[in-house]
Amino acid sequence: MTPSKADIKLIKSLDKKKFRNLHGLFIIEGEKLLEEALNSGIEVKKVFKREEIGAELMSRISLLSSPSPVVAIAKMPFEKPFEAPDKEELYLALESIKDPGNMGTIIRMAEWFGVKAIYCSPDCVDIYNPKVVQSTMGSLFRVKVSYIELEELVVMAKKSIPVYGTFMDGKNIYQTKLPKGALVIMGSESHGISPQLEKRISEKIHIPSFYKKRSGIDSLNVAIATSVVCSEFKRQSVFG
Amino acid sequence: MTPSKADIKLIKSLDKKKFRNLHGLFIIEGEKLLEEALNSGIEVKKVFKREEIGAELMSRISLLSSPSPVVAIAKMPFEKPFEAPDKEELYLALESIKDPGNMGTIIRMAEWFGVKAIYCSPDCVDIYNPKVVQSTMGSLFRVKVSYIELEELVVMAKKSIPVYGTFMDGKNIYQTKLPKGALVIMGSESHGISPQLEKRISEKIHIPSFYKKRSGIDSLNVAIATSVVCSEFKRQSVFG
Repeated sequence: MTPSKADIKLIKSLDKKKFRNLHGLFIIEGEKLLEEALNSGIEVKKVFKREEIGAELMSRISLLSSPSPVVAIAKMPFEKPFEAPDKEELYLALESIKDPGNMGTIIRMAEWFGVKAIYCSPDCVDIYNPKVVQSTMGSLFRVKVSYIELEELVVMAKKSIPVYGTFMDGKNIYQTKLPKGALVIMGSESHGISPQLEKRISEKIHIPSFYKKRSGIDSLNVAIATSVVCSEFKRQSVFG
Repeated sequence: MTPSKADIKLIKSLDKKKFRNLHGLFIIEGEKLLEEALNSGIEVKKVFKREEIGAELMSRISLLSSPSPVVAIAKMPFEKPFEAPDKEELYLALESIKDPGNMGTIIRMAEWFGVKAIYCSPDCVDIYNPKVVQSTMGSLFRVKVSYIELEELVVMAKKSIPVYGTFMDGKNIYQTKLPKGALVIMGSESHGISPQLEKRISEKIHIPSFYKKRSGIDSLNVAIATSVVCSEFKRQSVFG
């Protein structure tokens, strides 16, 4: 279909979180991503195809620097913010993750490692930010992600599973017996886990570094650290 | 110092690989990154500071969208393309990795996991691309990275260490005894490892997925996969 002036205005507004939340809508670009959204039961309101509307109009409505052949307006699914955790499952909590690429990569990786749900602090980047949507490669439609105050989350989660967090002075993750069911908190790259959350954590863990020479590196990218932690939790519980 | 017209022209040209290679120079932005370059013995030709030249001129010479307070012109260090591998060390080979963010993240992670050297196929993104330089967070100045034809590399490396590659039909990495010294090849996200390289590999490995439901995800981001592989190699050889 051809987008009306109102459609164009709406699509452009959906680049901003404020308007996504106001309308409860977000943008999906690309054929494969749209197919994955439809397969996952995402309600798609309108679809605009380059072959129907032409490249010029497409480049006007696309939010990407290289416009894809399809732009769709989709409805945000409702996610319950919290459900009592399963004692056999792995959960992630992300505190103040601001970078859309990191958020998208974490959601995609979480699906691969069978993470049951991801909880984000309210100041994390919005998961319906177009850059996050694109970089999840469709995992966004299959992984449960919600926003919640992490202090509340930790209090509730600790009734059923232990809560882990990564710290420089934590125990070596490779030499710690990790449980099957756990909530793992990952802090922001610049500030780590906040002191308010730190005091509620059951166990501090750490990914050791393996360099020999004096080195200037003091941290891993947060998506990388999250993946290594998930890999080690799953390795121990499934193949350990 | 105040940049001359020729300096400004040179800096702008260094956004392109062709001119970086022509001059043997690249750009470093940011105080911390410059400090790490100097600490690592990188030869810095010229430094321009916002406090000296003003914000307007700084925004003209900066290659970043948010100009940093310091822009420096540095000399590319010479790296021997290949040295006989140490039988106790881990090496990475990257085939056709095009995304600067992935390349930067891999170089940073490689330092953390004590990777001895990274070999890139000639069609990988240039490591002196400003986006790569920034995203390595200084690891670029401490990790040995060079460009080489990977088929030649594999032939030479196999004289001292086994060569691993990740494939969908590879052995479960968590259930495979991994050696201390190895060269691991990581293929591009879109095409994986090329058939020419595949036939020269000693052992195929695979990071298994852990999701239970039918899923649409068929791969991990290449930087994530590389990290999980390095983590598992190091875990086994140091803590296994």
